Amino acid sequence: MSPRRLAAVLLLSAASLAGAAPRSSDDVGSTDRAARVALAIHGGAGTISRDRMTPEREAAIRSALERAAREGHTALLRGRPAVDAVTAAITVLEDAPEFNAGRGAVLTAEGRVELDASLMTGHDLQAGAVASVRGIRHPILAARAVIERSPHVMLVGEGAQGFAREAGLEFMPEAWFITEFRAEQLRRIQQERPADGQASVDPEPHWYSTVGAVALDAEGNLAAGTSTGGMSNKRFGRVGDSPIIGAGTYADNRSCAVSATGHGEFFIRHVVAFQICERMRLTGVSLRESADHVVGKVLVDAGADGGVIAIDADGNIAMPFNTPGMYRARIGTDGSLDVAIYGDE
Amino acid sequence: MSPRRLAAVLLLSAASLAGAAPRSSDDVGSTDRAARVALAIHGGAGTISRDRMTPEREAAIRSALERAAREGHTALLRGRPAVDAVTAAITVLEDAPEFNAGRGAVLTAEGRVELDASLMTGHDLQAGAVASVRGIRHPILAARAVIERSPHVMLVGEGAQGFAREAGLEFMPEAWFITEFRAEQLRRIQQERPADGQASVDPEPHWYSTVGAVALDAEGNLAAGTSTGGMSNKRFGRVGDSPIIGAGTYADNRSCAVSATGHGEFFIRHVVAFQICERMRLTGVSLRESADHVVGKVLVDAGADGGVIAIDADGNIAMPFNTPGMYRARIGTDGSLDVAIYGDE
Repeated sequence: MSPRRLAAVLLLSAASLAGAAPRSSDDVGSTDRAARVALAIHGGAGTISRDRMTPEREAAIRSALERAAREGHTALLRGRPAVDAVTAAITVLEDAPEFNAGRGAVLTAEGRVELDASLMTGHDLQAGAVASVRGIRHPILAARAVIERSPHVMLVGEGAQGFAREAGLEFMPEAWFITEFRAEQLRRIQQERPADGQASVDPEPHWYSTVGAVALDAEGNLAAGTSTGGMSNKRFGRVGDSPIIGAGTYADNRSCAVSATGHGEFFIRHVVAFQICERMRLTGVSLRESADHVVGKVLVDAGADGGVIAIDADGNIAMPFNTPGMYRARIGTDGSLDVAIYGDE
Repeated sequence: MSPRRLAAVLLLSAASLAGAAPRSSDDVGSTDRAARVALAIHGGAGTISRDRMTPEREAAIRSALERAAREGHTALLRGRPAVDAVTAAITVLEDAPEFNAGRGAVLTAEGRVELDASLMTGHDLQAGAVASVRGIRHPILAARAVIERSPHVMLVGEGAQGFAREAGLEFMPEAWFITEFRAEQLRRIQQERPADGQASVDPEPHWYSTVGAVALDAEGNLAAGTSTGGMSNKRFGRVGDSPIIGAGTYADNRSCAVSATGHGEFFIRHVVAFQICERMRLTGVSLRESADHVVGKVLVDAGADGGVIAIDADGNIAMPFNTPGMYRARIGTDGSLDVAIYGDE
């Protein structure tokens, strides 16, 4: 065990001995410099207005974001690798019905659930992704299985499902994924505007829902992951940026780890996640400058809505978005938790 | 009509009046500086040994490469946009049974044909891609239809096929795609090593077959496209780099247009096509330096075989590969045609 990992384990043990799980936003983890771990998560970006959000829904979203961030952070404090923290956080968000990933994902034009996910580790540039899969409870774990159990990076459709079955992943019946909220949403969208292939619309105008996580572990390694149900009312096997390595997800220890959420077609064309990493690596700008440039300038100039979460090897975190809001949470190297929804938080 | 385009049209008219189609490697087009058009194509890279190549097969390959290059170049001389030249060249290669794209594509473990393609235009960063589609005669035209007739970038599987049907694209029965050469190849591979998901192997060790084209048109615009049947004996809906914008294909007028061929998983993880473009744009190195660095250093360090064709807005062409050979052809701004297979040509 490395000194850093040992320190992290000791830190966790000390926290356990203290007897109570940390609860406030100030006392998570510690400022232990021997094990600077940190992570950030997101649950989508777009037009979020306080007047359309019920207190109950907002509370459920904040609670799920907090649970996911703490799950991931706990893994880091235990000395687990960044990829474990990323999958731990994302599986919480996939199970939470509030987000468009796993259970609670939006429905296709046929009322079905088709899921995408991708995962990347920054120390070895390993990557895995699945697209257009059905029935897999945690698509992010399927992406992880692609890394660990196949020579490939991207598997799609029934072939990917067959692979996930052979890998022993958990499957759930389709009805398990479908919430009444999403079924009602699809009915409303299809009444307003029938599916015509041109008119794949999101549940709310300019709302892009995806979940993702980025993490720095005690070894100094980075990882990033993203999971989504894509667009409401979609047809034609449309794949967005979430399962595309480079577009929705990228991780490179030499620069940063990024998970994106936004208007996927633009994020693919601008290779957003990798562009942020490469700009940082090749021009020497900071994480914040690089992420702000791509989200606040490149995407804005292109007319593209969205945001990213990004972390570098020093544990700096950037979470820029050019939309009114982004569901997000972070636990920095100081151990403090922040959960936010609106742009003015 | 712009002066450049007019000049190109006049040039073509003059060539037509001359009465004979250009045939030798020296007299294609002209060194007309008012319309510097150029293009390059590839048909795969890998271990190509002269002793395993019959004279008949080599002649067929060289002939198809020449036909494809001339088709694309003719479009450019007519003042057509770069994207027309790219699709004109690639449709020739898709129809040619010698290459792993369209007709003559390799077979999956089930003996089927699953095709991928992507296309991008450098002046507006528009992109389209299809993956894991069956029956579409020219997948590159399906990628083009995604750009022109949908708000999306990437469509996969049956959904993509449904879209292509609605777009009026030509479909062929599966038997049309399957050549005796590929059927025999699959039998041989499966005798040696049954499909197990881990062992997707290419027809020859370290042979990666893909076709692609990049072009500069008379307006100064760039485009790039790539098409493939993927890996022989593949299972699990594996998708390689060819339909991934950023990995197998990228075009940006500010830097260059790239089409890649090689060990797809590495090309995805290193976002090869976009990395070449961004390195050029952000560091100011030449096309050749950027392409050589990524193919000769980044990929070699990663243990990845392959090559790229790339063109910049001045019509410079780079075709680096780190394998013994790459099927390739180019017609530079001087109008001269070069066709090559081996590394020592």
